Amino acid sequence: MRKILALVLSCCLSGVSADPLPSWKEGPVKEAIVAFVTDVADAGGADFVPTAERIAVFDNDGTLWVEQPMYTQLAFVLERLKALAQEHPEWNTVQPFKAAIEGDMKALGEAGLEGLMELLMATHAGMTNDEFATIAADWIGAARHPRFGRPYTELVYQPMLELLDYLRANGFKTFIVSGGGAYFLRPWAERVYGIPPEQVVGSQIQLAFEERDGKPILVREPKIAFIDDKAGKPVGIQRHIGRRPILAFGNSDGDLQMLQWTTSPPGRRLGLILHHTDDEREYAYDRESHFGRLDRVRDLAPEHGWILVSMKDAWYRVFPSAR
Amino acid sequence: MRKILALVLSCCLSGVSADPLPSWKEGPVKEAIVAFVTDVADAGGADFVPTAERIAVFDNDGTLWVEQPMYTQLAFVLERLKALAQEHPEWNTVQPFKAAIEGDMKALGEAGLEGLMELLMATHAGMTNDEFATIAADWIGAARHPRFGRPYTELVYQPMLELLDYLRANGFKTFIVSGGGAYFLRPWAERVYGIPPEQVVGSQIQLAFEERDGKPILVREPKIAFIDDKAGKPVGIQRHIGRRPILAFGNSDGDLQMLQWTTSPPGRRLGLILHHTDDEREYAYDRESHFGRLDRVRDLAPEHGWILVSMKDAWYRVFPSAR
Repeated sequence: MRKILALVLSCCLSGVSADPLPSWKEGPVKEAIVAFVTDVADAGGADFVPTAERIAVFDNDGTLWVEQPMYTQLAFVLERLKALAQEHPEWNTVQPFKAAIEGDMKALGEAGLEGLMELLMATHAGMTNDEFATIAADWIGAARHPRFGRPYTELVYQPMLELLDYLRANGFKTFIVSGGGAYFLRPWAERVYGIPPEQVVGSQIQLAFEERDGKPILVREPKIAFIDDKAGKPVGIQRHIGRRPILAFGNSDGDLQMLQWTTSPPGRRLGLILHHTDDEREYAYDRESHFGRLDRVRDLAPEHGWILVSMKDAWYRVFPSAR
Repeated sequence: MRKILALVLSCCLSGVSADPLPSWKEGPVKEAIVAFVTDVADAGGADFVPTAERIAVFDNDGTLWVEQPMYTQLAFVLERLKALAQEHPEWNTVQPFKAAIEGDMKALGEAGLEGLMELLMATHAGMTNDEFATIAADWIGAARHPRFGRPYTELVYQPMLELLDYLRANGFKTFIVSGGGAYFLRPWAERVYGIPPEQVVGSQIQLAFEERDGKPILVREPKIAFIDDKAGKPVGIQRHIGRRPILAFGNSDGDLQMLQWTTSPPGRRLGLILHHTDDEREYAYDRESHFGRLDRVRDLAPEHGWILVSMKDAWYRVFPSAR
């Protein structure tokens, strides 16, 4: 019993004394986040939201981790693709395969998420989903970012990890809503972000149930089942979560509809947009970028009250310490 | 602080002393359930499963609530359909509309879940998802079961409510995996079952994101996006939950693949099948029923170790007390 008491006391005390967002600089952005969380969690306040309705959704690429010089999942795809290319001479003349094999990033960027999905299917269909999870997990453990030389899972944003923790400590349920593949993220999202597989909403390729040697398996078929990007994000949220988030955090035009969907109803809502302004510590890009283009969302932010978070100005640090 | 202590004490004491499954008769079924839950939650035991992996999936119709004399969602559809029929004279000659309007239950049963989906779409597309949620919630509040004269949400099975609570108290996350429509269940599943919308996996019609009067909406389109039945259940589980359940509870051949998927991996697993054997308190049906046919699953149960739960023999009571 004494142990329980000590635990209760230490929880209460630490919750009161420590800054839950130490990597966020004091200023209007941090103030807005803390005010929002405090207000919706205040049982006596006008903006109170019951715990069950405290749904927060986060884009992944460029919002929770690095998306330059290309989407991490695309780096993963390119390595697989090159290994399989000699069996597919036709890939040398057909886009987006040609661009992928030649490393033509501009053409790849223009192929967009749909192009990425095509490459994904060509390289990843025909195996079971469990096999794919193993391949993805093995790769993410071994791969290194070309500029930073660190595993991609260490190139997540420390301030965002703190924000996820802070929200959960205040009764929020945190979801990833990514244009990337759900099965690429799920093998490691819980370890890295504290977000379990069932709270990862993403693009999906078709799965087929079969029996092989008397054992049930799920085979990945070369067909897109769902693209969780742009207007697909509110659809993915509704299909998967079934209720309207009250907080959305994105960083590109792919998050436009998610931000609209989250912040348009009456009541207290928070829309946040990470603006990559930090060429020294990370990258600086917006309207002209092939990956994570931030153009329309930036123009629409003021009228919707979405808060632009300048990485350079809002964060003391970008990445976690090397482990 | 004294209040917290009292709370902790009362929790501990009630957890130790009270039977968490009072509506379940002593016998092999109850013993198997309690042994399974105890063993996977025993941190020192050979069958220990970490909390995050304690995923339990439940069929809904005929497993958590009554599915006779027809699926509840079908009763809902029929009322809507009759109201709309005079605008659609062609429905008088085309199945499954003809059967629906004439109340021909046999023909409707033969139309299966696909037929149900067709009726759903004809009567439910073209509105927003929020509007549909309101219609469904209003109906479920007002409708009465033809035999029992009670709201359908009171014709859930008391022993199953206890089992859901018992599992959650032991660190399980409980999901509904229903052939029925996710959006028909979500408006009330949390209140009735303690299962939040994001843990309801079900069939889905296509949603389209649109803007109307400057507001984003999700419109229900007359197209099936996903049928969460039979071989679709493991697919729905994988897409939505992203990890393999360790417990599955169903009652019909529609649950075959969900049971296979759940219980086939190595390690401790539990597959349960509710057998409707109680014509007095509820219904008795299996191999010949149009709704909830239990035929192949019953034959396959012994070789897979799935436990047949005879309603008549296993339960002291079927429904909760009238409220």
